[in-house]
Amino acid sequence: MGKNILVAHGGGPTAVINCSLQGVVEAARASGQVDKIYAARFGAEGILAGDLIDLTDVPASTISKLSRTPASAIGSCRRKLTDADFPTVLETLRKFEIDCFFYNGGNDSMDTCNKVDELARKEGLDLRVIGIPKTMDNDLDLTDHCPGFGSAARYAALSAAELALDASALPIHVVVLELMGRNAGWVTAASAMAGRLTDCQVLTYLPELPVDEDKMLADIERCYAKGKGLLVTVSEGIYGLDGEPLADTGIVDGFGHKVPGGTAQHVTDQIVQKLGLKSRAEKPGLLGRASIPYVSVPDREEAYAVGRFALESALKGESGSMVAIAAERAPVYQSSLFLAPLAEVANVEKKFPLEWIADGNGIGDAFFDYALPLMGGDFPEYALLRG
Amino acid sequence: MGKNILVAHGGGPTAVINCSLQGVVEAARASGQVDKIYAARFGAEGILAGDLIDLTDVPASTISKLSRTPASAIGSCRRKLTDADFPTVLETLRKFEIDCFFYNGGNDSMDTCNKVDELARKEGLDLRVIGIPKTMDNDLDLTDHCPGFGSAARYAALSAAELALDASALPIHVVVLELMGRNAGWVTAASAMAGRLTDCQVLTYLPELPVDEDKMLADIERCYAKGKGLLVTVSEGIYGLDGEPLADTGIVDGFGHKVPGGTAQHVTDQIVQKLGLKSRAEKPGLLGRASIPYVSVPDREEAYAVGRFALESALKGESGSMVAIAAERAPVYQSSLFLAPLAEVANVEKKFPLEWIADGNGIGDAFFDYALPLMGGDFPEYALLRG
Repeated sequence: MGKNILVAHGGGPTAVINCSLQGVVEAARASGQVDKIYAARFGAEGILAGDLIDLTDVPASTISKLSRTPASAIGSCRRKLTDADFPTVLETLRKFEIDCFFYNGGNDSMDTCNKVDELARKEGLDLRVIGIPKTMDNDLDLTDHCPGFGSAARYAALSAAELALDASALPIHVVVLELMGRNAGWVTAASAMAGRLTDCQVLTYLPELPVDEDKMLADIERCYAKGKGLLVTVSEGIYGLDGEPLADTGIVDGFGHKVPGGTAQHVTDQIVQKLGLKSRAEKPGLLGRASIPYVSVPDREEAYAVGRFALESALKGESGSMVAIAAERAPVYQSSLFLAPLAEVANVEKKFPLEWIADGNGIGDAFFDYALPLMGGDFPEYALLRG
Repeated sequence: MGKNILVAHGGGPTAVINCSLQGVVEAARASGQVDKIYAARFGAEGILAGDLIDLTDVPASTISKLSRTPASAIGSCRRKLTDADFPTVLETLRKFEIDCFFYNGGNDSMDTCNKVDELARKEGLDLRVIGIPKTMDNDLDLTDHCPGFGSAARYAALSAAELALDASALPIHVVVLELMGRNAGWVTAASAMAGRLTDCQVLTYLPELPVDEDKMLADIERCYAKGKGLLVTVSEGIYGLDGEPLADTGIVDGFGHKVPGGTAQHVTDQIVQKLGLKSRAEKPGLLGRASIPYVSVPDREEAYAVGRFALESALKGESGSMVAIAAERAPVYQSSLFLAPLAEVANVEKKFPLEWIADGNGIGDAFFDYALPLMGGDFPEYALLRG
């Protein structure tokens, strides 16, 4: 009799999280060792409610569409499991006779994954638990990078290039682009690539460094004066010298959390009011993690591969690990997969190296040496005729 | 001795305006009748300053990249020519011995084009003047549609689908998407396609109809209660029953113009404060007209074709016309080009038909019958597993 498996998604989706799901499902089918394939509907919520989607007989043609489907095809959630929840989790695992459990997510999800593994061992449950990494924020430890980051970085780079060209095509604009990343600047850093793809000026601000607003405005005024248009890219999470976020919508949602965003609009307001320049703010927001046309091909392939590797590892009897990526960049980019202990990954946030940021607003070559292979090749060459 | 030609861009770029430039240049080279190929640097500004870019010897390999280059490769402007400017325009045309002049733009640009043609005739200048249509707003008269619209509509539709899936993957979101179009709702209407591509709920609000905010919030609350997530798409230009724009940034730029935008943020604030629901606003803004990965292939091809047709028409001795598109949709989509009198096109704004809007927030089949062929085929089929 074959094994039963369960996959769940945790946290915000990426453009390629469904590729990992596809990897798990297709590897399970190819193995000949899997009986039932379940997915939790809306992540931890589905596990707690015993609400699983039975994917066992979903046509292969539908599964193959997962690699082009944005967001989470099975649903995700923001619920962080507490100690009080775990007995219910084990109950669902027992009820559906789950042999292998895969949690696909970021830091919080790896922590949950680790706790499920520990509790299952304690309770004598015969369960294999493997974490599948996912986060556009790229802040998981031990892995060279995270599936989902390459695509978000590609989106940031190409969108920034497109906006920079638009800004410089009309001679009177400063455009400010806000990108996701409340604590980690990996994705926003990629937007600095706009300066490498075009002849436009780009200033980039990450949440890893406090922003001196007076210096920021002086830099904007100086760059603008060169008369070629200007793009300013900001992470939604940048904060000032006083340690407070630059933008505060002043709005608190139904859960008591501050509603984020508005950083680009705040910077734009300053540009208009203090510098007297025409400016507009753009915030593609969730599109930065949902957009399929901007997906990085290597990111898509690696997201698929980590799903397959997770399934194969579990069938080999591995448990308590997260799939991680090792990468070599010279002479050509190559990646391979290995297992990292969940206990060492959980709750460690990998920060953007401060030494990769120059003068508060410039992103150095070291970052691009690291990130370019992940963002996919085939970078556009634009025809720039206006000199 | 061959002819000298001049191309200029007017108004905001589209994702395919450079394709029309490529069409003009490649047709000019193929004709064997053109000597010098000039482009105005930054549109009317360049013409007035006598600042032309000489494209005559730009390598074919560079010209061929125009179809993948966003914004305007030669620069555009927002300057509307006045009577006082026209003598200077004629001076530049004389100085560079221009035989054929092509102005690529929207309503204002066609008006300018018409005036240049009239003045040239009056002054006895031997000049052929042809307008090349361009506007993502799709509001030029006499032509079935405008180059640039199909790509902006494709962007709106696919981005909306991606956001709708993201919103419904996490069960606690209302996402509000703001799209360009201050007076015309053609592009925002295309975002309603998200409901056809996904199983998500979408409400769409265009600037053609005043918005009853109480009804809007009631509709949002009712749709949200169905528990599948909700996307609300709004044009930046929607206004309330009092005739005032829903959003007012309260900021005036250096030119005395109100700074636009903030409509989605305003709606989101209402959702959070009055309905107590979690909501976030996204505003990709200029990306809606600059994004290359979302370009519609038929739009790209037609933008190229109108450029070629303009050049060929001028060489045949035509003048005082805009290239326009005729289209048949059954049994399959086919388009052809013809010349429409500039005087009849100039300053007429084609409005979105009110009868295509149902109940204030729904876009009917008639619009999609019209727009789908322009947005390009190859619409994604998503794997939706969560039921």
